[in-house]
Amino acid sequence: MKSRRTFLQHLTMSAGILPLALSQTGILQAMPKPYISQVPDGPVLKVALMGLGSYADRVAKAMQDCKRAKITGLISGTPSKLESWGAEYNVPENSRYNYENFDAIKDNPEIDAVYIITPNAQHHGQCLRVAAAGKHVICEKPMSINAKEGREMVEACEKAGVKLLIGYRMHFEANTLNAVRMRKEGELGDIRFFQGLSGFRIGDPNQWRLDKDLAGGGAMMDIGIYAINGARYMVGEEPIWVTAQEVKTDPVKFKEGVDETITFQMGFPSGAIASCLSTYNMNYLDKFFLNGEKGFVEMQPSTGYGPIKAKSHEGDITKPHVTHQTTQMDQMAAIIHDDMEPEIPVDGQEGLKDMKIIDAIMLAVSSGNKVKLDLV
Amino acid sequence: MKSRRTFLQHLTMSAGILPLALSQTGILQAMPKPYISQVPDGPVLKVALMGLGSYADRVAKAMQDCKRAKITGLISGTPSKLESWGAEYNVPENSRYNYENFDAIKDNPEIDAVYIITPNAQHHGQCLRVAAAGKHVICEKPMSINAKEGREMVEACEKAGVKLLIGYRMHFEANTLNAVRMRKEGELGDIRFFQGLSGFRIGDPNQWRLDKDLAGGGAMMDIGIYAINGARYMVGEEPIWVTAQEVKTDPVKFKEGVDETITFQMGFPSGAIASCLSTYNMNYLDKFFLNGEKGFVEMQPSTGYGPIKAKSHEGDITKPHVTHQTTQMDQMAAIIHDDMEPEIPVDGQEGLKDMKIIDAIMLAVSSGNKVKLDLV
Repeated sequence: MKSRRTFLQHLTMSAGILPLALSQTGILQAMPKPYISQVPDGPVLKVALMGLGSYADRVAKAMQDCKRAKITGLISGTPSKLESWGAEYNVPENSRYNYENFDAIKDNPEIDAVYIITPNAQHHGQCLRVAAAGKHVICEKPMSINAKEGREMVEACEKAGVKLLIGYRMHFEANTLNAVRMRKEGELGDIRFFQGLSGFRIGDPNQWRLDKDLAGGGAMMDIGIYAINGARYMVGEEPIWVTAQEVKTDPVKFKEGVDETITFQMGFPSGAIASCLSTYNMNYLDKFFLNGEKGFVEMQPSTGYGPIKAKSHEGDITKPHVTHQTTQMDQMAAIIHDDMEPEIPVDGQEGLKDMKIIDAIMLAVSSGNKVKLDLV
Repeated sequence: MKSRRTFLQHLTMSAGILPLALSQTGILQAMPKPYISQVPDGPVLKVALMGLGSYADRVAKAMQDCKRAKITGLISGTPSKLESWGAEYNVPENSRYNYENFDAIKDNPEIDAVYIITPNAQHHGQCLRVAAAGKHVICEKPMSINAKEGREMVEACEKAGVKLLIGYRMHFEANTLNAVRMRKEGELGDIRFFQGLSGFRIGDPNQWRLDKDLAGGGAMMDIGIYAINGARYMVGEEPIWVTAQEVKTDPVKFKEGVDETITFQMGFPSGAIASCLSTYNMNYLDKFFLNGEKGFVEMQPSTGYGPIKAKSHEGDITKPHVTHQTTQMDQMAAIIHDDMEPEIPVDGQEGLKDMKIIDAIMLAVSSGNKVKLDLV
């Protein structure tokens, strides 16, 4: 057992704020809603959620614990959802919109930013409209369905003078940040290898994620992107080439243009190499492994919603869990309102790099060739 | 704590023979030299060891616990080694040879087989000479430095009417066999993915393993071959294509023709895919991961000399450790003398498949293309 002091120090160091109360018997008890995210005081970010599906539901629930972010608007094509969500989250009728009329947020001072949580192929057009309305954009990953669209989104937001952030929740997660810190501080020595196994067996064959027109692709857009993005922040370099191989065992469920399983590799300037898997047809994955000259960090789960588990050459290094989307939205409030610079970028340029890599992976699959990249 | 009965049953099931004695106090005690390998009674295989380096030393020590294999001859270019080993293992002077005169084993009834444990590039010529002398050949992996040589070795042994076995010790290891059994019995469902991370940071830059003329290559020949071979027995199919990517961070230590780090992928007829790493420049590897529709097996260490650790979707499934080379040599005695068929082949054709894959990987690296394979 750790001593109380050590435990407190650990929490304090890893989280900055103490989510615990000492009972009279001296036993530590968690408070009902532990809040651990380090976020400076400041104005609250007033957020409209666009696309009230299952992930928006997760975000909305997580935001109830936010200190600096609040749901103040709703955008949906389903009137009954606007009503039920409006009631649940106290969003008045004049801050509820549909996809025809949401440009009117322009004149709504109760909305600072829109979090776009719609099917991938819709992000581009919706982002352009939100930017034109003069509101900041938080866009769920993937930011778009290709780099061309992503570039246009970055340009539109720059032109409109609004911020564009991508919903990279792992960039604020304690275990992820600790691994990046260890790498930066040299605890792993020179980085040699990254492995990212990202995937799951997808259920309902009729969902939008398996519809090329809505998803813009398959597993790579949705889950493979975690391995791409993870490789970049874990290795700490931008890849200079990719190779990729596709297999499809179920062409009925995974139709033309919807990738089931792709293995891909990325080379980095230092000579480090990443070996990754993206799949919609396997469980028991969600693993990152960063291997350096002097040590390693392994995370499994590495990007799931639940607690992340981490170990290194020195043993278990798991940090306490905080709901990722709670931390994300508080931090994004500070990025938008205070111009805070996050440890790992979440801006449009960051999202665009991942889209360029996805484009390159798809070209590598179709051509069979190594595809060079210039992301810096 | 498990009950005694359960523990005994477990050992009995996993090993067949009980290496334990019950003390008077009822506490289980391991006997000094536990012997667990299941091997039928039969004549002893009289083995000459060729090449008295560090791995031969490991084999010789392990053979002291063998029931059916015995060191009866020695072949070395170093007279002092012949003397010291001869004394240690009771090999009389007339069964000690050098590389000039070892063809005379032909007339030595005290030698049934020669275990070739010399640098890779020498295996081919030595194998042909042993076969010509009418003795069975056990050849350390890689069997040769390319498929052409391997094929000639298979043909020479067939022509001479002797057996050719490759030193694949993992093919007799309890955890490996258990994983293969689980896959065969459908416990993992359809196999989707295999990952093999094989490598270590090699020390002394002047050793033969880093000399292209003696090693025939670099990490792939020596350690990457475990991932190749492992992919085949774990997936239970023969690959139909390979792709591969090489990086070299230390061209001084790893000279032209000596590969440092290669990632490679193999596709199988079922749609399963293997993603592998071969390296002489990283630690913290030695990991196999076999992922199926219904479950997985992970082994780490997966091919090291020490105890193998295994877990599955159901938890820890590690089997007791027995020195690999002890089991290997006993089993090889049964293969040679009793025509026993091992669960996973170790014959020349098995070795030749791995050499064909190594040739294909090297072609994939140099050409940048996917290379098709026809091994069946």
